[in-house]
Amino acid sequence: MAVTAAPRPHPLAPLSPAEHIKARDAVAKLHGASESIFFRAIHVQEPKKAELQPFLEAEHTGNLTDDTKRPDRVAIVEHDVIRADRSEYINAFVNLDTGEVATVSAPVPHQPYVTPGEFDLFNDACINSDLFKEAMSEFVLPEGFEICIDPWPYGPPNADEKDIPRYMQGLVYAKDTRNKNDDSNHYGYPIPIVPVMDWHTKKLIRVERIATGGIDDELEAKVRSEEPVKLFENHKGCEYVPELLDVPLRTDLKPINIIQPEGASFTIQEDGLIEWQKWRFRLGFTPREGAVLHDVHYDNRSVMYRVSFSEMTVPYADPRPPFHRKQAFDFGDGGMGRAANNLELGCDCLGAIHYVDALTTEPDGAPSTAKAVVCLHEQDNGILWKHTNFRTNRAVVTRNREFVVQFIATLANYEYVLAYKLDLAGSITLETRATGIVSVTSIDEGKVSAYGNVMTPGVLAQNHQHVFAVRIDPAIDSYNDADSQVVIEESHGQKIDPRTNPYGNFYKVQREKVEKATWIDAEPRLNRLLKLENANKKNPISGKNLAYKLVAPVTQMLLADPEGLAAQRAQFAQHNAWVTGYRDGELWAAGEFTNQSTREVGGVADMVKRGDWFTDRETDGANGDAEGRGKRSSPVVWSVFGLTHNPRIEDWPVMPVEIFQIHIRPTDFFNANPAIDVPSTRNDASVLLGGSCCTASGDKNASAVQQHPVTHLQGSAPSIDPKAVGANVDEKLSKRLSKTFNGLFGAKKEVK
Amino acid sequence: MAVTAAPRPHPLAPLSPAEHIKARDAVAKLHGASESIFFRAIHVQEPKKAELQPFLEAEHTGNLTDDTKRPDRVAIVEHDVIRADRSEYINAFVNLDTGEVATVSAPVPHQPYVTPGEFDLFNDACINSDLFKEAMSEFVLPEGFEICIDPWPYGPPNADEKDIPRYMQGLVYAKDTRNKNDDSNHYGYPIPIVPVMDWHTKKLIRVERIATGGIDDELEAKVRSEEPVKLFENHKGCEYVPELLDVPLRTDLKPINIIQPEGASFTIQEDGLIEWQKWRFRLGFTPREGAVLHDVHYDNRSVMYRVSFSEMTVPYADPRPPFHRKQAFDFGDGGMGRAANNLELGCDCLGAIHYVDALTTEPDGAPSTAKAVVCLHEQDNGILWKHTNFRTNRAVVTRNREFVVQFIATLANYEYVLAYKLDLAGSITLETRATGIVSVTSIDEGKVSAYGNVMTPGVLAQNHQHVFAVRIDPAIDSYNDADSQVVIEESHGQKIDPRTNPYGNFYKVQREKVEKATWIDAEPRLNRLLKLENANKKNPISGKNLAYKLVAPVTQMLLADPEGLAAQRAQFAQHNAWVTGYRDGELWAAGEFTNQSTREVGGVADMVKRGDWFTDRETDGANGDAEGRGKRSSPVVWSVFGLTHNPRIEDWPVMPVEIFQIHIRPTDFFNANPAIDVPSTRNDASVLLGGSCCTASGDKNASAVQQHPVTHLQGSAPSIDPKAVGANVDEKLSKRLSKTFNGLFGAKKEVK
Repeated sequence: MAVTAAPRPHPLAPLSPAEHIKARDAVAKLHGASESIFFRAIHVQEPKKAELQPFLEAEHTGNLTDDTKRPDRVAIVEHDVIRADRSEYINAFVNLDTGEVATVSAPVPHQPYVTPGEFDLFNDACINSDLFKEAMSEFVLPEGFEICIDPWPYGPPNADEKDIPRYMQGLVYAKDTRNKNDDSNHYGYPIPIVPVMDWHTKKLIRVERIATGGIDDELEAKVRSEEPVKLFENHKGCEYVPELLDVPLRTDLKPINIIQPEGASFTIQEDGLIEWQKWRFRLGFTPREGAVLHDVHYDNRSVMYRVSFSEMTVPYADPRPPFHRKQAFDFGDGGMGRAANNLELGCDCLGAIHYVDALTTEPDGAPSTAKAVVCLHEQDNGILWKHTNFRTNRAVVTRNREFVVQFIATLANYEYVLAYKLDLAGSITLETRATGIVSVTSIDEGKVSAYGNVMTPGVLAQNHQHVFAVRIDPAIDSYNDADSQVVIEESHGQKIDPRTNPYGNFYKVQREKVEKATWIDAEPRLNRLLKLENANKKNPISGKNLAYKLVAPVTQMLLADPEGLAAQRAQFAQHNAWVTGYRDGELWAAGEFTNQSTREVGGVADMVKRGDWFTDRETDGANGDAEGRGKRSSPVVWSVFGLTHNPRIEDWPVMPVEIFQIHIRPTDFFNANPAIDVPSTRNDASVLLGGSCCTASGDKNASAVQQHPVTHLQGSAPSIDPKAVGANVDEKLSKRLSKTFNGLFGAKKEVK
Repeated sequence: MAVTAAPRPHPLAPLSPAEHIKARDAVAKLHGASESIFFRAIHVQEPKKAELQPFLEAEHTGNLTDDTKRPDRVAIVEHDVIRADRSEYINAFVNLDTGEVATVSAPVPHQPYVTPGEFDLFNDACINSDLFKEAMSEFVLPEGFEICIDPWPYGPPNADEKDIPRYMQGLVYAKDTRNKNDDSNHYGYPIPIVPVMDWHTKKLIRVERIATGGIDDELEAKVRSEEPVKLFENHKGCEYVPELLDVPLRTDLKPINIIQPEGASFTIQEDGLIEWQKWRFRLGFTPREGAVLHDVHYDNRSVMYRVSFSEMTVPYADPRPPFHRKQAFDFGDGGMGRAANNLELGCDCLGAIHYVDALTTEPDGAPSTAKAVVCLHEQDNGILWKHTNFRTNRAVVTRNREFVVQFIATLANYEYVLAYKLDLAGSITLETRATGIVSVTSIDEGKVSAYGNVMTPGVLAQNHQHVFAVRIDPAIDSYNDADSQVVIEESHGQKIDPRTNPYGNFYKVQREKVEKATWIDAEPRLNRLLKLENANKKNPISGKNLAYKLVAPVTQMLLADPEGLAAQRAQFAQHNAWVTGYRDGELWAAGEFTNQSTREVGGVADMVKRGDWFTDRETDGANGDAEGRGKRSSPVVWSVFGLTHNPRIEDWPVMPVEIFQIHIRPTDFFNANPAIDVPSTRNDASVLLGGSCCTASGDKNASAVQQHPVTHLQGSAPSIDPKAVGANVDEKLSKRLSKTFNGLFGAKKEVK
């Protein structure tokens, strides 16, 4: 295929291969032949909002011409400059029109994040290190086991570490190779040591020993024994690949096929523009976030400028060092896009599926194709709306069709299934499913722990939390920043008052505009919710501001002591929502650099601290104070929710999904139910189940049942013999009631 | 079909038609020819738990013989004895073995609940009443409109009413008949009067006038105008049936068909025994609750004795009398079973569906068949568990198959879609979907209100709450009452402590046994949850008690002033959970009689007050105090959750579903993920979408896209020209990284 980019790519379109190479070459040229470069990621730099908005408005109104002013097309090139004793991480911004590096970020000495390619090197560096061999000499593995190391981001430093260079740590396991199956699960065989590598020198600097005790045991590892310790003598396997299971697979789960005989109802353009029903948006895909929705419209009205999953932190609650360093930021430390699974038809989604590839970056800067990292499809989600007229018994019922944008990331042992769902009633749902293998460590057999749960003898799954942050940049029927406001709505019970509330049933719906960047905690006792509103446009019927409301699950926030490292690094995870002032490029709830951080820098807490506000003020400083802090801005909403995961045995060896959803629902944005025009068409492919479903072994009535596919609990109603009735019924009532028995409650009765 | 009941019905089986008639006849005989009877409901009386348990244990262990002692087979006959001046409501209990009435409840003078059959009578009594005609003479309806009255339970009395007899009230609307469509929606035309009927005399006793003002207007209705008031002059229609819509139906929603080519994976017996995968349970259906699950087992181990939706209250927050009486208890006042829709194939569920009929009762006591009131089917719910081995890129992924027991009730304007879902991982989910038409009243055109939202000019949808109660009677691997305990589990953050928590990342999981009947409020800050445990059986691996945990949404409780009628009648709705001591027949969160109640009698609050306890005690009184209050019992758990519904315009004219789910999940009940044996079979019916999905009109690359059904955002990656590279890359690293690029994050990269 010839490398010809579209002459004028959409400003939000991902880089073309030609652009990708152009950006790479500009950076290579910048550094010249004297420096070695490790390319981490090359991707489009989103335009400044102020520059993009006029373009989008022209596009939406059909006024886009060749003369429409376009934002500069810029690529961001994330790369390391590698020197003999150290590496520096730099972001270069390449103007793709000129082919020149426009700006370069300040160099960062520590490990910015870890890439897949770095892991294998780490594994080998450990295995070949004398330090590691020496540490392993404490243990004897069973015959046929080999070492298998999961690299982990280093997390926060130890108390005695200052200004550390690039570190990486590993969790060490053994793998049973006797079954000659590469997918044998090593997570059932943890080895209680943690190697730490200096990534600059690619040498191990130490191997930490881990405590393996139970309740009442010390936090410190046991004194090294003189005798070699035999590991895993009584361990059970923990296989999950079907051919290694020690239980038979179920054979009685008959297929469910989801068929779209006329095809799907959506279209996607090569540059990511997706249209489905009245929705229209652009799909982005970034190394850090995975799939992102841009420029989301419903029925030609803007709803969202950008929606994304922004960050997640997973601190483990085992107080024994070095487990304080077991705190992943799965976006900042690794990246959901980099970690995205190549999805497979008939596995990750059912039905008629469209897959989207993305470009990623090779270490030499070449673009490569990550296949099928996002899947798009429609699905049925039960009833959308229904009403039965009890007088006629006529029901009108529509189905809840959803359009799903799904991607899945594997972070070593663990998986996240993330999805955006748009529905026919104008709502957006963001869903997280947590699955995969819980992270474990060694525990002396027979002991139990206050820090987790024993999954199988010798294996402790540590208590931990997953705290997610979603970033919502609203555009409620307008792309004008000044139109955007956030309101806190609460419902308050009221005391009896003879004048205003004589019976006490009244409750008051209170509104409070968010005037200034802040955090907001959930308060379900007040039904506290956030409304993303247009400050200037009112609903013509209700007179209320056009709005979308955010309905998020009320979950526990970060439990770590606010004074400790885990909390200092994850300020975002301490409140259920944040409202911050928009600034270009501020996409990260926990800040740009999370790995090796000791506190959250440039995250939502810092954004709040600078004091942006959202409404007009009489005072000066509309453009911020002398230091540029605090200015009139448009609000960005961050929704934080999560799972306190105290593992249960049922999570082993691979856990069933734990699901969370947040909903963004129109609230006086439309003039009626936007799904009232959904046809209540009967699905003709549905079938009545008869014989095979109803026939249980030993059911003597099988043949009768086959003729009556509907089960009558205890048979059909016979007619009653009036002569058997010993008492009069109220005849007038009875007659009237029989006549009117297709009654209020809708069930059409049929007297046989 | 001959009327021959199975000789020995299962004790939990619904009544056979023959049993139904036998019970009816016994009651008719009891009253003799001198009394008129109105039969409300005839259904099976569930056996006493102490008598049923030995039977079930014999059944489960395969030891059931003809000699196994069976509980008495008893029918409950709910009926009115109608006299000239009043009616009395009585429950008669008929022993079906003897055919005799065993016991009779004390007569109840007030309206126990309303039945469908009573509604039409009410409508006619209003229309024909002079009082009503006189009230209506205040108003002039447009040509072609006729009156249409929705009967409502009377709710709590006015302040000046004591010892009222059987009352019913109505909400009055007008219906546009000009379109000659019986399903024209009258809810868009409310008339501000409320007729009240005395059901004993079947006469209207008064017609109340309703305030129609807005903010700052009085609570009282306006003084009656001298001039007739013309109604609905500027009203817009609010139709929802497709042929009356003023917008065209969507035509671009292509069908989704759900096909089970090999049939379904479940069986159902005529007596309600259902088996699906490793689940086994009995389906019941009662007039008040609708579908109920009994004797729920997984893999031959008991999980639940009984699970049911128990009650719901819907208080409206409009303080203007008589709206304090607008508080429905949809189970107690009406009954979800009585209100159950006749479900239709291809509408209420998709796929391969099995429907279940139920027997209901005619006013003369005859059984009649309510067709298709419950649907049973399997559905796919996305990914159940997945893990990708980053070293080999092999993914194992299973689908989340659910078995769904669904029923839908219509309560006048409103619909509830209720479902039990069992899954492959041993979890039970209870789901509520609220839909239908929001309840409205009149508002002067152009005004807005603090009590609700204007849906269309002149129509106010009042703020209200829906508070649901689910009843859970656990049987965690045992039917022995003494094995059952409930534990509150919380996760508590801990301060830094050099000895126990040096970095502050530790949190403590605390357990507290519920010793005594009590209520429990949600506390998401502590991740408070209830565990239903076996007190005496421990998991062999973790050492923890076998358990299921209850994961319920944290929602706002009842807002009404606790001193007022709405709250007094719905104590249950004021706390997120209740744990009460088991007593036979105590199934109702708000007590048996809710209609016309002034306080909750015999509901969860009273159950708590009597002081049952759940653990062995040294003290006396194991069988209660002198009054029989307080005894050693087994815990029953009630989960309360709900929706504060401040209507949005999008809820009009029929609202999109608002969904809540509570989950009951195994927690150290099994020895591993019970779904590890689910095959990760690829679904061969899924298809890759190409041309039709990707081809948008105007897409010049349509043909190219058709050849490449996967969208490459900006095309595929070309190879890079090494000569174009101006700087060296770190060759060793680059080589290693390329080799190992099937890296930690699972995405198999493909360099073209």
